[in-house]
Amino acid sequence: MKTGIGIIGVGTVGSGVVEILESKIAYYKQELGLDLKIQQICAKTEDELSPYAQKGYAITTKVEDLFSNPDVSIVIELAGGYDLPLKWITAALNSKKHVVTANKALIAKYGHLLFPLAAKNNCHLLFEAAVGGGIPIIRALQESLTGNTVKSLRCIINGTCNYILTEMTEKGLGFASVLADAQKLGYAEADPTFDVDAIDSAHKLAILASLCSKKYINFENMHISGIREIEAVDIDSAKEMGYTLKLLGIFNQTEQGMDARVHPCLVPSNHLLASVSGVLNAVYIEANNLGPALFTGAGAGKLPTASAVVADVVSIARSMEVGLKPIPMGFYSQENPADLVPIESLFNKYYFRFTTRDEKGVLAAITSILSENGISIESIIQKNVKDPGHVNISVVTERCREAAVNNALLKIGALSSMSQHPKMIRFAE
Amino acid sequence: MKTGIGIIGVGTVGSGVVEILESKIAYYKQELGLDLKIQQICAKTEDELSPYAQKGYAITTKVEDLFSNPDVSIVIELAGGYDLPLKWITAALNSKKHVVTANKALIAKYGHLLFPLAAKNNCHLLFEAAVGGGIPIIRALQESLTGNTVKSLRCIINGTCNYILTEMTEKGLGFASVLADAQKLGYAEADPTFDVDAIDSAHKLAILASLCSKKYINFENMHISGIREIEAVDIDSAKEMGYTLKLLGIFNQTEQGMDARVHPCLVPSNHLLASVSGVLNAVYIEANNLGPALFTGAGAGKLPTASAVVADVVSIARSMEVGLKPIPMGFYSQENPADLVPIESLFNKYYFRFTTRDEKGVLAAITSILSENGISIESIIQKNVKDPGHVNISVVTERCREAAVNNALLKIGALSSMSQHPKMIRFAE
Repeated sequence: MKTGIGIIGVGTVGSGVVEILESKIAYYKQELGLDLKIQQICAKTEDELSPYAQKGYAITTKVEDLFSNPDVSIVIELAGGYDLPLKWITAALNSKKHVVTANKALIAKYGHLLFPLAAKNNCHLLFEAAVGGGIPIIRALQESLTGNTVKSLRCIINGTCNYILTEMTEKGLGFASVLADAQKLGYAEADPTFDVDAIDSAHKLAILASLCSKKYINFENMHISGIREIEAVDIDSAKEMGYTLKLLGIFNQTEQGMDARVHPCLVPSNHLLASVSGVLNAVYIEANNLGPALFTGAGAGKLPTASAVVADVVSIARSMEVGLKPIPMGFYSQENPADLVPIESLFNKYYFRFTTRDEKGVLAAITSILSENGISIESIIQKNVKDPGHVNISVVTERCREAAVNNALLKIGALSSMSQHPKMIRFAE
Repeated sequence: MKTGIGIIGVGTVGSGVVEILESKIAYYKQELGLDLKIQQICAKTEDELSPYAQKGYAITTKVEDLFSNPDVSIVIELAGGYDLPLKWITAALNSKKHVVTANKALIAKYGHLLFPLAAKNNCHLLFEAAVGGGIPIIRALQESLTGNTVKSLRCIINGTCNYILTEMTEKGLGFASVLADAQKLGYAEADPTFDVDAIDSAHKLAILASLCSKKYINFENMHISGIREIEAVDIDSAKEMGYTLKLLGIFNQTEQGMDARVHPCLVPSNHLLASVSGVLNAVYIEANNLGPALFTGAGAGKLPTASAVVADVVSIARSMEVGLKPIPMGFYSQENPADLVPIESLFNKYYFRFTTRDEKGVLAAITSILSENGISIESIIQKNVKDPGHVNISVVTERCREAAVNNALLKIGALSSMSQHPKMIRFAE
């Protein structure tokens, strides 16, 4: 039985998918008995498509052609964006085509519409490449860990941010200059908002957290903060304390409900996640039977991402042969939303940095506000800064409630001696 | 459709499997539509079985009862050993039962007989728990990485050895005292041979290397050396050079053939594998499309291992529903053996330690023997040792051929000034 493939988009990942399929199709036939064939390739312009037409592939600029093509059983969507792909995948599923996508934004935003539609049409909708690029974390959560409940998860799932933080840590540079370098090297987009403001991480965390919790977690309900405000001085303080600053996606199943959020974190430097540097991604889970486990590898890039897409295609082809039903994703729907615990109710250990004028009584004012809010201090360090007449006061708290921290920082920020807005970074638990 | 399970062995892992199945069976039914049931449990004695009989399970001390039981579709073998399990699994497969095992020794020794037999009977034979305990590395290699070729692999797959080396590294203790402690703590067996002499690691590496190479790799043809000879002084030297000593399983696809071996290695301390400490296991791969990736977690223990067994059972149950054929393991047979490159032909960087009497001309003799054998020296350090009149000479070589190293060490070992057999440890590439 021939399994026909239609591809939407021949940008970086799409061209990688064609490349891998071309090199592997003979092997899949011989070793796995699967007869895969790229039946049609779609892109916006004839120009993009011409190298594929030259190789003899059927091409089209009309995406609908794929859905009406009886020889196409699997549609691979690699175009990016939200709304067009939603329309396309809806049409593909309604035409009884199985779908593979690498589009995390789409799954995070519209997965709750698409998974029920896929189930209704008895179609597979696979998305291994959407989180962690080539790291097989989706299949691990869906299949390998069926004997476990994943109680908590910590992840580094944006290579751009991890690259920027690694460079800042290793070279002592500031955010802006590292970002500029990353843009030159192609590790950051011209408009880096999605990455550095942690929207991309939030999309991916929402998907992972939904798979762990078996509830639909809407990324719009999560606390999300990025790395724009991180300064070299905070990374240095972290180092001195034996911590490494990372942008983490965090998920916990708590007695109060699901806790899912993305923000910068201080990770103990001897923790496995602290060693994940540069553009690498990593997912660290704590499962009730397995205990802790870490998966790390390339989170982006042409061939790593394409290899995950191809694994999904092979998986669907194997299943199609015998009519294996998709792994139920029924939980991922609007009718089954997670109760997210508001971040204000959570308890954490915190690092604060207050930059103040070097005036009598400042330290006393700060410590008394913290004390009034029930925040106990674990350590406090005062250091002179370059700017004469100013000091940095670094505080590490014991475990306390975020709401109390917000109150205290509001009051401390209003003190007349403060020369900068107070900085706060949470410790990873 | 009810899927009946028969279990052989209710020791540590077997009791864990029952525990997890009991806690998850309702969930599998509700969420995955799978109706699993433990139909029969077999152990050597009525005594071991009595707690299960009390819970209402059908029990037996005759393993054949499972194979003739028409309600049993999946046999889980958790008894350990080689020859009886070979007999049992052969009988189970010939009775058209699917099989799940955690028995790495069995797969490494008899996989080339069992996989063809499973294929002949169109039965699944799954073994996720055999390597890396609960880490889902087998499924990753078989399914998630089908879009890749794994060109090389480095792994820490024996928790006992990794625990011993970690303790030696962190506490500066000797092998014998750490082993004794590990035995008291239950991290090492009374007879630690299988672990510390790396037989267990070799079994597991042979399985991983076979999956990567798509050839049958017989562990008996591999170079295997364990950690008995490791001394605190060598771990200290490694630390000074910025390296961490680990027992690694190594696999490479080279132009000369397959390279598979297990031995102690010096790993750069900033490499992810160097951070894998204590009883943790880890598998680090380099795949042609994905690039490098690391999987780490609990490599042993009741619930981690049992959770991997249960994931295999669930996978078979899903496949059975629709008649999904097992993933082809046709390559794992006597007719398809790998050509292993002899370790003597390989090139490596080496660390040597020579303990000699502090006599004139020793250093000159050593360096001239190395030079005669074409071995270039990267660094050399001479230090006094506790024993007065003796010195340690540590040498780090540039890349050279193992055969040349063997020649040189034989000649150096024969020098009259040598007070101990020369030590040699390879660097991880």
